[in-house]
Amino acid sequence: MTSTSLEPPTRLLCGPGPSNVAEEVLAAMQKPMLGHLDPGLHDILLEVVEMLGAAYLADGLCLPLQATGTSGMEAGVVNLLEPGDTAIVAVCGYFGRRLADMAERAGARVVRVEADWGSTVPNEALLDALDRHPETRLIAVIHAETSTGVQHPLRELGALLREKDVLLMADCVTSLGGIELRTADWGVDFAYSCTQKCLAAPPGMSPLAISSRAMDTLAGRSTPVPFSFDLRLLQQYWVDRPAIYHNTIPVLNVYALHQALCGVLQEGLEQRWTRHAEAGAHLQARARERGLELLADPDHQLPCLTAIRVPDGVDAKRVQSVLLHDHGIEIGGGLGPQAPPMWRLGLMGRNASTETADRLFDAFDSVLSRERIPSAR
Amino acid sequence: MTSTSLEPPTRLLCGPGPSNVAEEVLAAMQKPMLGHLDPGLHDILLEVVEMLGAAYLADGLCLPLQATGTSGMEAGVVNLLEPGDTAIVAVCGYFGRRLADMAERAGARVVRVEADWGSTVPNEALLDALDRHPETRLIAVIHAETSTGVQHPLRELGALLREKDVLLMADCVTSLGGIELRTADWGVDFAYSCTQKCLAAPPGMSPLAISSRAMDTLAGRSTPVPFSFDLRLLQQYWVDRPAIYHNTIPVLNVYALHQALCGVLQEGLEQRWTRHAEAGAHLQARARERGLELLADPDHQLPCLTAIRVPDGVDAKRVQSVLLHDHGIEIGGGLGPQAPPMWRLGLMGRNASTETADRLFDAFDSVLSRERIPSAR
Repeated sequence: MTSTSLEPPTRLLCGPGPSNVAEEVLAAMQKPMLGHLDPGLHDILLEVVEMLGAAYLADGLCLPLQATGTSGMEAGVVNLLEPGDTAIVAVCGYFGRRLADMAERAGARVVRVEADWGSTVPNEALLDALDRHPETRLIAVIHAETSTGVQHPLRELGALLREKDVLLMADCVTSLGGIELRTADWGVDFAYSCTQKCLAAPPGMSPLAISSRAMDTLAGRSTPVPFSFDLRLLQQYWVDRPAIYHNTIPVLNVYALHQALCGVLQEGLEQRWTRHAEAGAHLQARARERGLELLADPDHQLPCLTAIRVPDGVDAKRVQSVLLHDHGIEIGGGLGPQAPPMWRLGLMGRNASTETADRLFDAFDSVLSRERIPSAR
Repeated sequence: MTSTSLEPPTRLLCGPGPSNVAEEVLAAMQKPMLGHLDPGLHDILLEVVEMLGAAYLADGLCLPLQATGTSGMEAGVVNLLEPGDTAIVAVCGYFGRRLADMAERAGARVVRVEADWGSTVPNEALLDALDRHPETRLIAVIHAETSTGVQHPLRELGALLREKDVLLMADCVTSLGGIELRTADWGVDFAYSCTQKCLAAPPGMSPLAISSRAMDTLAGRSTPVPFSFDLRLLQQYWVDRPAIYHNTIPVLNVYALHQALCGVLQEGLEQRWTRHAEAGAHLQARARERGLELLADPDHQLPCLTAIRVPDGVDAKRVQSVLLHDHGIEIGGGLGPQAPPMWRLGLMGRNASTETADRLFDAFDSVLSRERIPSAR
């Protein structure tokens, strides 16, 4: 039985997430903890709600769920779908598959529209599926597919669906705060994200953005939503106080998210997107110069997540392990049994800089060279 | 739009929770954050699993859910019940009602066995209900009813059910680490708790204890469980690694829980229960001497939560507000529209001491005196 305190080593977290927490965010978690029903906490909650609206460029309800990003996905599925409803899900990686799985667990009939890992599902294919299934209630896509580094053309999909009577849900776990995302302008009815990637806070909450149209549909449900995910109760708890108690929100995680959102808005959304774009482009250029092949279709490459195919004959896990143990740098591998052999390199939040990109790639390159992978140059 | 950092005031948290976080637990949250798939993190997860088993005196699977205590309740309900199953729920306060609500949301047929707020539901009444509903799959009780300060005789219920083919679930949100709880010996199949009360960690996770019998029943389900709450996937993620990815666990909250559990086990469970018992008895004696009436049946009074009836003509919310703003002390009021007028005073975790009981009651007494409530003495 352990009885000693933890001594985890310091890591540069350049995998698919989490990213390193900003120092001022860590400091916020040391501030005096208020009770979750303290009148003073309500002001903080309302500031978080307002700042999330600004970060999502949303015009509906924003609040963070009291659970990690995975539960944000599930909250969308169980609120927007009822048993027997049809959902069209774009699947071109691990998280699209998971979303389809969750929708089936919720009793929905799921129409998967698939593409290979590294590609994106064409919007036309989603529209075709909608034509074949006009009863569809929800179309769901992964805005930033963390398992492949592919970005879905969400703005264009929103425009194509603008006059349709169907809800649009987007997984923004690796996009919020890192790449352009305008949920109101683009017509996204439900977006969910996490705190531990481009926002540079620790994991523990899932920021949600819900359109007025989506909230309106909840009133017409004939089946209940799991209590933990009941958006109407969460709205009463976060916004309409002092009406109702829902759960004991993770107060210190709320402080962290508050500070992280202050950082995002002080920097400016467009400046932050540019910083992520430049860091990712720099890393990707170096990888290509090195003769490495990227998994993602170049037209849909995310800046914040770069998936690199593993050259033949290389022990990918060994490269990860040497980077971790000799250089203190975490990168990711392929996720799940369907993944082609790859490494996943992330530059998110405070790590999204060309300096960190160079530090990461220099170390990665030195390990590859030790593994006798010659440079293309 | 806010852009400044938070400056929350310091509070002594003596409501129904959260309690003040121990300093060493806060310090643990400043340690370098590992990625959730870091091999080094698995050792930490396994230590948390082992220490939770020791804290719950459990012999099955223990792990903390990546969400707050409310979701721990829901995880139990959705894993142990399928649509159409019968559940008997003891309801004598807010949390029993909520549990019954959640079970109905999950499609179960709920048999409520009720008692007044301040009483406990007699075990004989639960057995009678079981006789009337022999198809019952689950009996659920609130071990420590946070809305009333009442303790359910859980050990005795477990003994009565030992030979019955029914699962026993217990809400241990306000009992784990504060009062005697022996899940294996008492035959509890599913217990859930929180981190922010008697464990003295911040809110954000829900420690679960699941018996082998309960895990076995999951294999026989014919309907799926919501992904977020799927105990078999969570077991693979927390224990059986590196098999599977489930969610990005809240790493810093895991560090905090690890440190908090180290504290619990270093102190010793029985010593900790005694400390909570002495602090609560001291507070309750002072309240009775002051001529105040306690809500809970004295035979089932919790030590860690004391509900005091509001004397006629007193503005209960004003007393709370003056305590909060003039003394920096948080206490709770009644929870929900069914609650009789009351204050709820908690002495949990690091606050469970006679010194803190005196500080709390001295301030409470001075506010009552200003409100012209004469002392009995």
